[in-house]
Amino acid sequence: MTPDVHSEAPLGRRDLRKQQTRAALTGAALRLCAERGFEHVTVDDISAAAGVSPRTFFNYFASKEDAVLGDHLIEVEAMRARLAALLPSMPVLEAIRRAVLIVVAAMEADRDHWFLRMEVFHRSPQLLPRLVLSNAEAERLTTEQIAVHLGVDPRVHGYPALVVATTSAAFRVAATRWMAAGGTLSLGALVDEAFTALTAGLTDPG
Amino acid sequence: MTPDVHSEAPLGRRDLRKQQTRAALTGAALRLCAERGFEHVTVDDISAAAGVSPRTFFNYFASKEDAVLGDHLIEVEAMRARLAALLPSMPVLEAIRRAVLIVVAAMEADRDHWFLRMEVFHRSPQLLPRLVLSNAEAERLTTEQIAVHLGVDPRVHGYPALVVATTSAAFRVAATRWMAAGGTLSLGALVDEAFTALTAGLTDPG
Repeated sequence: MTPDVHSEAPLGRRDLRKQQTRAALTGAALRLCAERGFEHVTVDDISAAAGVSPRTFFNYFASKEDAVLGDHLIEVEAMRARLAALLPSMPVLEAIRRAVLIVVAAMEADRDHWFLRMEVFHRSPQLLPRLVLSNAEAERLTTEQIAVHLGVDPRVHGYPALVVATTSAAFRVAATRWMAAGGTLSLGALVDEAFTALTAGLTDPG
Repeated sequence: MTPDVHSEAPLGRRDLRKQQTRAALTGAALRLCAERGFEHVTVDDISAAAGVSPRTFFNYFASKEDAVLGDHLIEVEAMRARLAALLPSMPVLEAIRRAVLIVVAAMEADRDHWFLRMEVFHRSPQLLPRLVLSNAEAERLTTEQIAVHLGVDPRVHGYPALVVATTSAAFRVAATRWMAAGGTLSLGALVDEAFTALTAGLTDPG
């Protein structure tokens, strides 16, 4: 049985329940992998911990890796929509700074999830290729978006790929500081600090 | 027999021969992995292609992965020594730009090797964790070096990690453009362009 297909609930509630099931599966996958290591966790374990059948698991995720990687592509999409709205009225770097705050808000609202996620990647580096490829694909799409906005060919002009790669790196540095501080610092403030330094041309600190 | 241990040649020649054997093993590993894929190549294959015994292979590399990753840590060390010499007399970003030119020169002098290397990582993403961890370790050491130079604690002050992560990202963008252009553009010019944009605070292109 796949309850989400046969449900009579209105679309809004059904979507909410699907979202909750996805989140429960990702949460269970992360908790179990943080405890035991990725290679010692099965789809059956994850499904049982989330209270669904393995068949339901596969309605949401194609693999154990997918469940661990989770839903952050939703935030990447939201960020891209925000970027599209901002780009026409401000410099590219400032538009990226503001669009990134969507991801910042999602991470600050769900801190424990992100800390656990980092712990799992740290413990199980065999997951890195998926993460690296998924980040590379997100960066490629944003590069394309900025190139279209600027009216340049991203295979010829270096700026779109450069601004995306360097702001992604700056964001990762801020997120790493945030996690290292156990969340006692504000991620938003750390991201702002990094973008301020980028805007200032990375001059030596005072 | 490990010829490099029992050789009577003066140290300079012996070192040179060791360096040549290492380069031959890495070259053979890359060529075979580009042809067949990493998982279909054995240490025996690599040793045979480089004209040495598997035992000699293990005098140079602990594993097949190590042979593919190769010797670029030597350039990382040379870059770090250059950085130490430059930092006292110029801004951090400018010192990094000049130190990176050591890696640029090594890559331009051995273009085919680097193109092959990128092809192998592209074809065999299971190698990415080693590359990611090795890059992360190199960035950590450079961050530490810059923090010491500035007299700040890199766990508290964000600048050292930020300048290292963003310049590394800028370098990777330049190297990717260089490879995408099949080497018809100068890597040094692409790196300079990226650092000029960073120095200018990533303002929109004209």
